[in-house]
Amino acid sequence: MQAKNPSDSRTTMTDMVLPSETNPLNNLFGGELLARMDRAASIAARRHSRRITVTASVNHVAFNQSVPVGSVLTVEAAVSRAFKTSMEVYIDVWMEDRFSGERSKANEAIFTFVAVDETGRPTDVPALEPETDLEKERFEAALRRKQLSLVLAGKMKPNEATELRALFMGA
Amino acid sequence: MQAKNPSDSRTTMTDMVLPSETNPLNNLFGGELLARMDRAASIAARRHSRRITVTASVNHVAFNQSVPVGSVLTVEAAVSRAFKTSMEVYIDVWMEDRFSGERSKANEAIFTFVAVDETGRPTDVPALEPETDLEKERFEAALRRKQLSLVLAGKMKPNEATELRALFMGA
Amino acid sequence: MQAKNPSDSRTTMTDMVLPSETNPLNNLFGGELLARMDRAASIAARRHSRRITVTASVNHVAFNQSVPVGSVLTVEAAVSRAFKTSMEVYIDVWMEDRFSGERSKANEAIFTFVAVDETGRPTDVPALEPETDLEKERFEAALRRKQLSLVLAGKMKPNEATELRALFMGA
Amino acid sequence: MQAKNPSDSRTTMTDMVLPSETNPLNNLFGGELLARMDRAASIAARRHSRRITVTASVNHVAFNQSVPVGSVLTVEAAVSRAFKTSMEVYIDVWMEDRFSGERSKANEAIFTFVAVDETGRPTDVPALEPETDLEKERFEAALRRKQLSLVLAGKMKPNEATELRALFMGA
Amino acid sequence: MQAKNPSDSRTTMTDMVLPSETNPLNNLFGGELLARMDRAASIAARRHSRRITVTASVNHVAFNQSVPVGSVLTVEAAVSRAFKTSMEVYIDVWMEDRFSGERSKANEAIFTFVAVDETGRPTDVPALEPETDLEKERFEAALRRKQLSLVLAGKMKPNEATELRALFMGA
Amino acid sequence: MQAKNPSDSRTTMTDMVLPSETNPLNNLFGGELLARMDRAASIAARRHSRRITVTASVNHVAFNQSVPVGSVLTVEAAVSRAFKTSMEVYIDVWMEDRFSGERSKANEAIFTFVAVDETGRPTDVPALEPETDLEKERFEAALRRKQLSLVLAGKMKPNEATELRALFMGA
Repeated sequence: MQAKNPSDSRTTMTDMVLPSETNPLNNLFGGELLARMDRAASIAARRHSRRITVTASVNHVAFNQSVPVGSVLTVEAAVSRAFKTSMEVYIDVWMEDRFSGERSKANEAIFTFVAVDETGRPTDVPALEPETDLEKERFEAALRRKQLSLVLAGKMKPNEATELRALFMGA
Repeated sequence: MQAKNPSDSRTTMTDMVLPSETNPLNNLFGGELLARMDRAASIAARRHSRRITVTASVNHVAFNQSVPVGSVLTVEAAVSRAFKTSMEVYIDVWMEDRFSGERSKANEAIFTFVAVDETGRPTDVPALEPETDLEKERFEAALRRKQLSLVLAGKMKPNEATELRALFMGA
Repeated sequence: MQAKNPSDSRTTMTDMVLPSETNPLNNLFGGELLARMDRAASIAARRHSRRITVTASVNHVAFNQSVPVGSVLTVEAAVSRAFKTSMEVYIDVWMEDRFSGERSKANEAIFTFVAVDETGRPTDVPALEPETDLEKERFEAALRRKQLSLVLAGKMKPNEATELRALFMGA
Repeated sequence: MQAKNPSDSRTTMTDMVLPSETNPLNNLFGGELLARMDRAASIAARRHSRRITVTASVNHVAFNQSVPVGSVLTVEAAVSRAFKTSMEVYIDVWMEDRFSGERSKANEAIFTFVAVDETGRPTDVPALEPETDLEKERFEAALRRKQLSLVLAGKMKPNEATELRALFMGA
Repeated sequence: MQAKNPSDSRTTMTDMVLPSETNPLNNLFGGELLARMDRAASIAARRHSRRITVTASVNHVAFNQSVPVGSVLTVEAAVSRAFKTSMEVYIDVWMEDRFSGERSKANEAIFTFVAVDETGRPTDVPALEPETDLEKERFEAALRRKQLSLVLAGKMKPNEATELRALFMGA
Repeated sequence: MQAKNPSDSRTTMTDMVLPSETNPLNNLFGGELLARMDRAASIAARRHSRRITVTASVNHVAFNQSVPVGSVLTVEAAVSRAFKTSMEVYIDVWMEDRFSGERSKANEAIFTFVAVDETGRPTDVPALEPETDLEKERFEAALRRKQLSLVLAGKMKPNEATELRALFMGA
């Protein structure tokens, strides 16, 4: 399989924030944002793998900025690293003020998807080759996140997680 | 403020998995499950704090088991540790086979919520006192998760994260 | 088939009341509450019978208390009496004030479900054995309700409805 | 206030049955049908009273015929009797076969609505004058249903329910 | 196939305008109104043809009057002209003030549907015979609209569009 | 007000086609596609005008290609011409095969929006300056479409519609 670039899977989902999707402070519900992220990231994973893809884990989502009703919200997802049958997808969320049009970063999130065949069995995916500096940085960090995930799940011994040891031992 | 127990915030949301919520393999969409988790966890955080609560982060969600259409799904959420103005909420997801009634663990997830006043400013929440062994275990681990989150966000130096250092240095 | 207790089918569905589900007075729409009741009761009937269950009738629903937007609503359903192929399900609806957390009874409802096989034909269900005083009271009243339903549908002569005659004749 | 006829409030809601609204047998969910009935009946009650109307009770719904996906469903609602501040609404549900176009009666239901002012307080509604034979029959039966409802709620003594006593005592 | 009248396909869809369907001015979203029009018109086309029908084009929709939240909206659709395998459906939208009950015309729209068999291939439909003056007028105009549509799509030469030439040449 | 380019308003909305949005042939419902178009076009109109925008008319939509369930659908909208207070928005719809990833044009549509202030009164919008050949072509055609719309609405005499006369008279 031929390697792909993040731009091959980049997915842009722009939509409004409707009143029915907001909490008592009139900001977008966390759950609704998570659902949009999952749909955009799932399309990115499918564009990379050309397979059915299923959500394997949500690695981290920080809701830094609340998104008021009436905003235009853009969810951008692209594969940040491919492993054997799984893909890490990095999601950037931008919001646009209703009147000024000022665009600001609202959230970031990282999801992992697995490519499967029609019977649900994991299948191999193409490698990912990052191009820009940001893509390369996210590609590197993806390995640390995978080790962390394996350690937390008890599937890797902490001392085998070389990338992480360096982080915490200052070495 | 008087401390509370996890049982004071425990929230049970049982509902069916409908065809409109499923992917091409006829299993529940990750995004729909995330939205249910967020609603249940948000109620648990409100029951603990009696405040408006907003989703601050999704710390980890592992989709271990796919949930077929027609299943009965139970999302159980309870506050696992309270900090000054934030609460970690632990979510257990159970699925029930349509015919045998056999119940199995489908997923676990950890969300963090912040209590805010009507203007959106963080406000203090009661302490949490775990009671059962499982509740105590989750309470302890919550501190490690908080340190990890701070380190990853660049808000704490790795060598100050005493709980985490122990994990990775075997000491 | 082994008899079951109401606790075997008890189903708890806790969820928020969202703005999109409310009428011009900002209270939950009757129709949305009916839909939640039907889903919870349908799960209870399935848990009792382990069969596909279809709604046969709504016997009575009284909307005693309006449920304001932002409330936490809990719909609790359990089988109250089993007949040959049908089950009466009793539904209690509780609401929780957003801030005080005070819990109050909002509504009660009674639905009847029929267990069917894959072709839609009615199939036998286990007997129900009530345990608590409340469960026994509801179990007894279920027979009166069934007779009333048959009389109103013209399928039973009023003078054969022994339970009901006693009620209206004071004997 | 001038009396009105049932035709003044008659409301016709024709719509399709979509796959997302059906149960495992591919028939319309009871809860979805109840929600449609409540919306149509609420419009009928508003047309009669020209007030905000809230669902007070569901008196009876019989799901006689299952409604397969792809059917065209028509919900027809009209006020069947007006009391001081409440209205009984009679609902007829018709289904139309997708291909033959054959129309058949699927269900009947009876809801009660109360007219309220902007503060939620009950307000008087116009009287109803039935015109056709069917309307007159439903108008008469509405009084029996109201007595039955009051007796079952413990708000009327059985021996004062003159309409009902006649039914059960054969006198 | 026997010709049909517009009354054979006339479809009435009355429903409320809910808060979740409105824009920042609290008026019904154009997109939601278009979706209701498409469902009503699709039922009308099916009633005329007794076939599966698919939307072929939206010829014109003018949103003359905004529809405030809480209105009762009635979408009325009927086939206005039948061609070989396609049908033009004319849609009238009426709104009713929440309190006065005053009914006014909100919008008109024209959609075209094609009748297809189970494999998606176009199939013949019955002729339409207009009865009232309004039906006859719409029937005549439908031919001009069809020519216009063909000219705009480059499938008919302008000078063959005899109906349209007359309009623009004043002859 | 400074003129803007189509690229200033271009809006990309990529999303999946879910089973709950499809007709009996398992293709996307026309009404659901219209609702997506309206949301994307409304964002484009807002990006051009930085005002509240309301749908004024749907000028033409041709459903050339059916969109099967599971497709990835991209709706791209950009302002094609600005008039005094109104904007024509041109919408291109692309579909992507689930597995091959092959992208094809599914539909085109043209909507018109009006910019309004908080009281709903029309307000001026910036001029549009097309840049690419396709943008220039659509800009020119927009005037013909506007004249056609005015003629059909009886607001312009056919012989004043200079652009259209040329089209039909071959001069």
